[in-house]
Amino acid sequence: MEDNLELIKSVARPSPSRIVLLVIDGLGGLPNPETGKTELETANTPNLDKLATKGVCGLSDPVSPGITPGSAPAHLALFGYNPVSFNIGRGVLEALGIDFDLQSNDIAARGNFCSMDEMGFVTDRRAGRISTEKCIELCRLLDRLVLEGVEIFVRPVKEHRLIVVFRGDGLTADISDSDPQRTGVTPKVITAQSPGANKMASIANQFIAQAKTALAEHHPANMVLLRGFSRQPHFPTIGEIYQLKPAAIASYPMYRGLAKLVGMKVLETGPTIEDEFTTLKQNYANHDFFFLHIKGTDSAGEDGNFNQKVRIIEQVDKALPGLTGLEPDVIVVTGDHSTPALLKGHSWHPLPVLLYSKWCRPDKVNEFSELACVSGGLGRFSATQIMPLAMANALILNNFGG
Amino acid sequence: MEDNLELIKSVARPSPSRIVLLVIDGLGGLPNPETGKTELETANTPNLDKLATKGVCGLSDPVSPGITPGSAPAHLALFGYNPVSFNIGRGVLEALGIDFDLQSNDIAARGNFCSMDEMGFVTDRRAGRISTEKCIELCRLLDRLVLEGVEIFVRPVKEHRLIVVFRGDGLTADISDSDPQRTGVTPKVITAQSPGANKMASIANQFIAQAKTALAEHHPANMVLLRGFSRQPHFPTIGEIYQLKPAAIASYPMYRGLAKLVGMKVLETGPTIEDEFTTLKQNYANHDFFFLHIKGTDSAGEDGNFNQKVRIIEQVDKALPGLTGLEPDVIVVTGDHSTPALLKGHSWHPLPVLLYSKWCRPDKVNEFSELACVSGGLGRFSATQIMPLAMANALILNNFGG
Repeated sequence: MEDNLELIKSVARPSPSRIVLLVIDGLGGLPNPETGKTELETANTPNLDKLATKGVCGLSDPVSPGITPGSAPAHLALFGYNPVSFNIGRGVLEALGIDFDLQSNDIAARGNFCSMDEMGFVTDRRAGRISTEKCIELCRLLDRLVLEGVEIFVRPVKEHRLIVVFRGDGLTADISDSDPQRTGVTPKVITAQSPGANKMASIANQFIAQAKTALAEHHPANMVLLRGFSRQPHFPTIGEIYQLKPAAIASYPMYRGLAKLVGMKVLETGPTIEDEFTTLKQNYANHDFFFLHIKGTDSAGEDGNFNQKVRIIEQVDKALPGLTGLEPDVIVVTGDHSTPALLKGHSWHPLPVLLYSKWCRPDKVNEFSELACVSGGLGRFSATQIMPLAMANALILNNFGG
Repeated sequence: MEDNLELIKSVARPSPSRIVLLVIDGLGGLPNPETGKTELETANTPNLDKLATKGVCGLSDPVSPGITPGSAPAHLALFGYNPVSFNIGRGVLEALGIDFDLQSNDIAARGNFCSMDEMGFVTDRRAGRISTEKCIELCRLLDRLVLEGVEIFVRPVKEHRLIVVFRGDGLTADISDSDPQRTGVTPKVITAQSPGANKMASIANQFIAQAKTALAEHHPANMVLLRGFSRQPHFPTIGEIYQLKPAAIASYPMYRGLAKLVGMKVLETGPTIEDEFTTLKQNYANHDFFFLHIKGTDSAGEDGNFNQKVRIIEQVDKALPGLTGLEPDVIVVTGDHSTPALLKGHSWHPLPVLLYSKWCRPDKVNEFSELACVSGGLGRFSATQIMPLAMANALILNNFGG
């Protein structure tokens, strides 16, 4: 376990206190050039502003200043894990993203359908971005392939993307990619990266050979490239580290998968923000830590839809009394990373953070916005410190060296 | 030596400049619900406010956000030592706390008088919290025990708490605890944790066997549990790292002990704040670094006595001209950790820090308070950076790589 997790583990104790971590995905934004206001600053958010007034605010960096994180590392940071040292392989990440029920010894690989010419050279690494329907059809084809001594699962992700999962005894992820990451060359032969990995390399090469035959008549998707072979990592759980009994409320598979990976119980919920807040209320008695994930803000940001992101923030604000009414000991509201509509994608900008508890030391911030949080009492800090702060404010940490 | 200490050591140079570090123990607070003001914000502190106006302020974390430190790690941080890696064993910590004159090869253990039933099971790990008088009496009894080849010192701490110090050749601290940390079980047999520790384990077990016999008729305190066997750590000294000739002015044993541990000369002083400032003045010519420790604020905070903490802060403010009048090159005023009267104990909240020197870059802060320090030019930073900052402001650091 990393030093910072060891430290917090050494002082954590169980308690009846309740903590709610509300993650508004991609929350951070950039000012609309016409108004000079970000999405969060534009949104009408009386409930969040009231909570900011009573609480303490600040700005956090998911990884470090300047680094734009993917969703997985950004969430790991929010849960207190150093996202640089706690790494999730690409294959596993994609498997989590489609809710595949990965077993602990499964080896998952990310795949691309690609185009290959008669000479065997890759001409398009994405097979002309075939439709998701076509991807589903071809995955069914490959899913029927039979390899001796190993079970194979081939599942579509989106367009040309797929995953391949190998299940069997004595498998290891320590093999090279077949994906050459460029065109004009042949796919690479997969090789063992450690002495025990020969069997796995052979199985993966056999799969690719069979797939090549099966796909021969399906140009532009007449070949498959695999990369990021990985096994589900064994992270210390939220329960082990913080002595919490955590639950996740998230409507998107990736976040449910991540939550499972760190030992959270994933609660069944519906697709809307209201559904998620209702799930919180219904399960409030059974857990002491809740991770509540709002996806729409990130999607709107990715689409470059400033106004839609504003609207979703306003929906969250409207639903907030359903959370504050439960009177958790600690409420944290933040995002996992910024997704400014102006950039149509994730960004490196720090995240506004709002922490409320009876024992926080309030600052002068009286609205929840990027600009106001600059002057917050939490200052600028690493997102990995949010969990220790939440625990402290719930009065469930012993003194260190006391 | 840790990287950060190596760095500062590599650029430190001797000089006639003088630095005073005024530590107001447990300085940080929480707002009184009736007034919305902390202890420091409530206190009338014209001298501190004047110094804050001329200086630069900020908020510091002794360990990291959310972590509530004991006094020892909090002070180590103030002296520039990473309190997580510079660890002081429990036995040594208690010995420092009662001013026991620990020799460099002594092994100290923290002890509890406990209650044991006829079957040998621990029924109360604190022997019903016997009086300190009773503890003194029983410690005298155990102090007379004789073990071959080793000297034994048994000293009372408070209530059921004691220390046992073993002095002799070939002793090591690398043995397990006898304290099972719970009731309903027998005390544990102490075992060697490394090949060379058999002798020490045997001595400790012999001591416990003899103590059991000696205490047989003293129920509820009819047994003793030992834990945290440790030897005085060898830390690089303030002199080695910073090339300073440091002195400590503190009226409480623990802080004098800590100061000794990092190589400070401990000056004789009286019990009052005025005594301490007088000691500073009298010894001002003989040292270039002074650690001046005020204990009363922490005690008042621990007692939940908001007004008393306010009064002591005001006493410090009144005495301050005795310090500023000496015109040190650098003055730092801060606390080691927060002790809000509302929490009646140490807390994780960051500490207001005030640094004044002719060469600081002043900010807009014009009062010394938690809230004002949020906007200070020092920002939010680790307490371990206070010493490098003080050194820099005394103009006694060479350029790094310059």
